[in-house]
Amino acid sequence: MIHLTSSSNERIRLAARLASDGSERKKRGLFVVEGEKLCAEALRAGYEIDTAFVRADLVGLESLAPVITAAYSAFSVDERLCRTMSDAKTPQGVFCVCRAADETDNGGIPSGGCLLALDRVQNPDNLAACVRTAEAMGFSGVIAAGGCDRYNPKALRASMGSLLRMPVTAAADLASELEKLSNTGFTVYVSVVDGKAERIDGLEKKRPCVVVIGNEGAGVSDEVRSAADVLFTIPMPGVTESLNAAAAAAIIMWEFSKAAPHN
Amino acid sequence: MIHLTSSSNERIRLAARLASDGSERKKRGLFVVEGEKLCAEALRAGYEIDTAFVRADLVGLESLAPVITAAYSAFSVDERLCRTMSDAKTPQGVFCVCRAADETDNGGIPSGGCLLALDRVQNPDNLAACVRTAEAMGFSGVIAAGGCDRYNPKALRASMGSLLRMPVTAAADLASELEKLSNTGFTVYVSVVDGKAERIDGLEKKRPCVVVIGNEGAGVSDEVRSAADVLFTIPMPGVTESLNAAAAAAIIMWEFSKAAPHN
Repeated sequence: MIHLTSSSNERIRLAARLASDGSERKKRGLFVVEGEKLCAEALRAGYEIDTAFVRADLVGLESLAPVITAAYSAFSVDERLCRTMSDAKTPQGVFCVCRAADETDNGGIPSGGCLLALDRVQNPDNLAACVRTAEAMGFSGVIAAGGCDRYNPKALRASMGSLLRMPVTAAADLASELEKLSNTGFTVYVSVVDGKAERIDGLEKKRPCVVVIGNEGAGVSDEVRSAADVLFTIPMPGVTESLNAAAAAAIIMWEFSKAAPHN
Repeated sequence: MIHLTSSSNERIRLAARLASDGSERKKRGLFVVEGEKLCAEALRAGYEIDTAFVRADLVGLESLAPVITAAYSAFSVDERLCRTMSDAKTPQGVFCVCRAADETDNGGIPSGGCLLALDRVQNPDNLAACVRTAEAMGFSGVIAAGGCDRYNPKALRASMGSLLRMPVTAAADLASELEKLSNTGFTVYVSVVDGKAERIDGLEKKRPCVVVIGNEGAGVSDEVRSAADVLFTIPMPGVTESLNAAAAAAIIMWEFSKAAPHN
């Protein structure tokens, strides 16, 4: 394995840019995964590994052998280069540059179960928590529209790998995507902050369905609201009617999960 | 109003340290609030404002007058000094150094309703989301034990002011605090990841009660677990049994809120 020591090495610089810059990820169709667990998860999830970088003292780790073997190229690197590639305070010493799934191929949306759709959720921690909860609650997939990049390193880390394991599809136009789903038998449930909308807990929950969560500040767009079969809300007894997007999503997915036949 | 221009000014340096350093906040019993809304919220919540710093072009803002009036000292400052005091990418131009509530005075724990207790929740975003949900779900107060500082600027911001409005008490020894509460008639509900524990949705929810959420990685401590009247769990149909602490807390508080008499 070739050992890299220079932070001006082209491959290192590309990895650093992919870690820090969403437009670079989009342009190249590549992203960076950091850490032993997440790299193994990316491989298991079927992502092609373009390049693996492993800190010299970790190269012999048995758990890394499949990742190193699967990568088209693998390099050992200095600790210093890990800091160049990582956006975390304590770099983990293992990095994989992976090929992104084709974002425009919406053939990937599961044809049944419960889907979660995110309308312009911007915060990587919220995206991560939503997808993690979706996986825990047995949702069949996630549609991420006009929001945070699913390959954002912070989101990948915070999702504990859910973003790699779950079927996640990007949608350029969520409203028309919802209409298509509605036409194929999905019931479209859209969450709003509106005391007059149906209460989430009283709601009849049909399957297949898609459940839409809106942007942190603005909620769902008017177009998405119009595409709803059912508008619903989380009743809040407190004085401030305000929940973090991921907290609202958790309550909503929990209620849909409870209504599922397996439960 | 005196105008400050030097970032080596002692007051500016103190504010910057208070924003970035939890041990400094603890030592001095002071914290920094940033932004027009949060500063007004701190004043409304009864915090003493030691010093207010306002960017020169904002000094005339009507909404800031009560804050400036209430502060023991108020200064106008250069934009550059705002960047010194802020931990945010885009400083808001209004800062208040406030006197922290007495953390050891546990007389502040509300004597009824539903309390949320956090056992070593470390992430400021999780602390913020938990307290925000607690407020929205009509909880009466929060006990924050051995975890993230409630005066962390990131947490204050993410909580949308809930951390200033809600009764939040620090507890050095949560297990003994829970025993005290149990002795005064509170039922102690402790959340665990354990398929054999009672399901949260089937649970009889008595009031007054205290509901305990554990650390992000380790869950609740053995001592806290032993102090429980009821152990409960969130059943998860998905393959990975894993929820973000704030997502789990949201589901739990929602279930307790639904069981409340007002609902």
